[in-house]
Amino acid sequence: LREWQKGLAAEFEKARENRNFLPGFSFPASLHVVYDMDEALAEVATAVLAVPSQVLPAYLGQIPDHAVPTCDWVIATKGLDERTGERMSVLVRRRWPNARIAVLAGPSLAREVAASQPTTVLAASEDAECAERVRSLFHGRHFRVYTSDDIVGVEIGTAVKNVIALAAGIVDGMGLGANAKGALLTRGLAEMTRFGLAHGAKQQTFLGLAGVGDLVTTCSSSLSRNRSLGEAIGKRIAPEKALSAMDQVAEGVPTTRSVVRRARELGVEMPIAEQVYQVLFEGLDPKEALRRLMERPPRKEGEIR
Amino acid sequence: LREWQKGLAAEFEKARENRNFLPGFSFPASLHVVYDMDEALAEVATAVLAVPSQVLPAYLGQIPDHAVPTCDWVIATKGLDERTGERMSVLVRRRWPNARIAVLAGPSLAREVAASQPTTVLAASEDAECAERVRSLFHGRHFRVYTSDDIVGVEIGTAVKNVIALAAGIVDGMGLGANAKGALLTRGLAEMTRFGLAHGAKQQTFLGLAGVGDLVTTCSSSLSRNRSLGEAIGKRIAPEKALSAMDQVAEGVPTTRSVVRRARELGVEMPIAEQVYQVLFEGLDPKEALRRLMERPPRKEGEIR
Repeated sequence: LREWQKGLAAEFEKARENRNFLPGFSFPASLHVVYDMDEALAEVATAVLAVPSQVLPAYLGQIPDHAVPTCDWVIATKGLDERTGERMSVLVRRRWPNARIAVLAGPSLAREVAASQPTTVLAASEDAECAERVRSLFHGRHFRVYTSDDIVGVEIGTAVKNVIALAAGIVDGMGLGANAKGALLTRGLAEMTRFGLAHGAKQQTFLGLAGVGDLVTTCSSSLSRNRSLGEAIGKRIAPEKALSAMDQVAEGVPTTRSVVRRARELGVEMPIAEQVYQVLFEGLDPKEALRRLMERPPRKEGEIR
Repeated sequence: LREWQKGLAAEFEKARENRNFLPGFSFPASLHVVYDMDEALAEVATAVLAVPSQVLPAYLGQIPDHAVPTCDWVIATKGLDERTGERMSVLVRRRWPNARIAVLAGPSLAREVAASQPTTVLAASEDAECAERVRSLFHGRHFRVYTSDDIVGVEIGTAVKNVIALAAGIVDGMGLGANAKGALLTRGLAEMTRFGLAHGAKQQTFLGLAGVGDLVTTCSSSLSRNRSLGEAIGKRIAPEKALSAMDQVAEGVPTTRSVVRRARELGVEMPIAEQVYQVLFEGLDPKEALRRLMERPPRKEGEIR
């Protein structure tokens, strides 16, 4: 890992941009590229964790203990631990029980943020002072930050929306239209909410930026990797093939695995996530998956949630 | 009105399609075109009201009293009375206090319904038996109908979403991106909900097909007249000019007027609807309207609702 980090840092320093993931946006002059954690965290007031969820545990192992209590940790990683289904802040908290932790989340496609397009997000923390410090640090003219005290709901909404985005992409790929997508998002939001409530999240959060806001943005933009992957699958490209054609991580894939496993354990009904799981990992035909979702028996609206 | 109806009926009968509003979709052979209300309502079990909100009162005046108690009235009209801000079912109820009334609403762009693309909607009524009759009559393989007992919430969500769609179109027209649109829809949903709660609607409804579902569909499709009108305005075409270029009604325009008037009366905070109102009717520059929405002071998320 360290050798790879060293190579990447050299590449970033030379190009002064991230050519793989955000080409065309030069680093600001004030940005210093380092790969050594000790160097990175020396006298730092705020540290942002923004690696994919699958490698976060390995990164946490590199962070020197002495750096932890001196700064605010801002988690920008979206997803649940693939093995345990745990939220990212739980992993950080377990390693350092006294760390000051906030999550930065909401409808924030990276390319649009880099291009200074107007973006509104949440800084969520159980520690109101930490949330406020992070809010005021990141808040600016084009990047509006609100605070939230529901870190559980914000992390779950942010993670699970990628599963629904895969389903929305499948609907797009099959050309089913905007009516079908509106119905899917409605039921997807209900699933996200149910899953969150079972983890102690607040319902209100799913009506907010990290719920409906992030869901709408992710499910409608061609910049979303998860939606695009779903679209390829909807066009009958095999999931393994569609996945290997991507140069970036689609967080929704491991998240689908961990969400469905947790939902089954907890007895939370998540029919959309179940169908996405079977399409991704059990070879189910997407058309059959959609048919199963559509042909559930008609009932009173409240009951479908 | 009757002469115009007579001419339209003759035109429909000759073409066997609605060339203005739904070209390319032939009427089924079982569809009979009539313009005389007495003839239309003779021995009818279910009547669908599907005229624009502005002309519904005039149509109600034509319906013979004796026809009313014998059938279920299904309101497909979306909007609020331009003058009084009242829901369509209130107008029908006032004219015939004992009428059996249901509202059919949800993400259902007409062209997609006509093309048999999968669509999911609600039949809402205070009378559970009426809702169930309408549900089972309309329910089919491509058109799924659920019931709801919150006619107030369904009518308000369906109407107010067109105001938010105008705003979403403005965001699209200005090229502000998916992050901005996700944030706008989140706050738009909160406004719709607040307005509904002030009228006795159930919060749950705004999380459902007539709330978030209809909102997402309307705000994302190029088939939505309200979104398209907003887009033209966002591209700096003057509202009057953009409106006169449309051959169809954009329900969001009169609805904006009645919603903003009612919100002011009731003291319900609706900043997005207010800005849309000022752009449409008071010559406010859309860029300035967006700036005002974006630059509201940062607070805790719960407080912005």
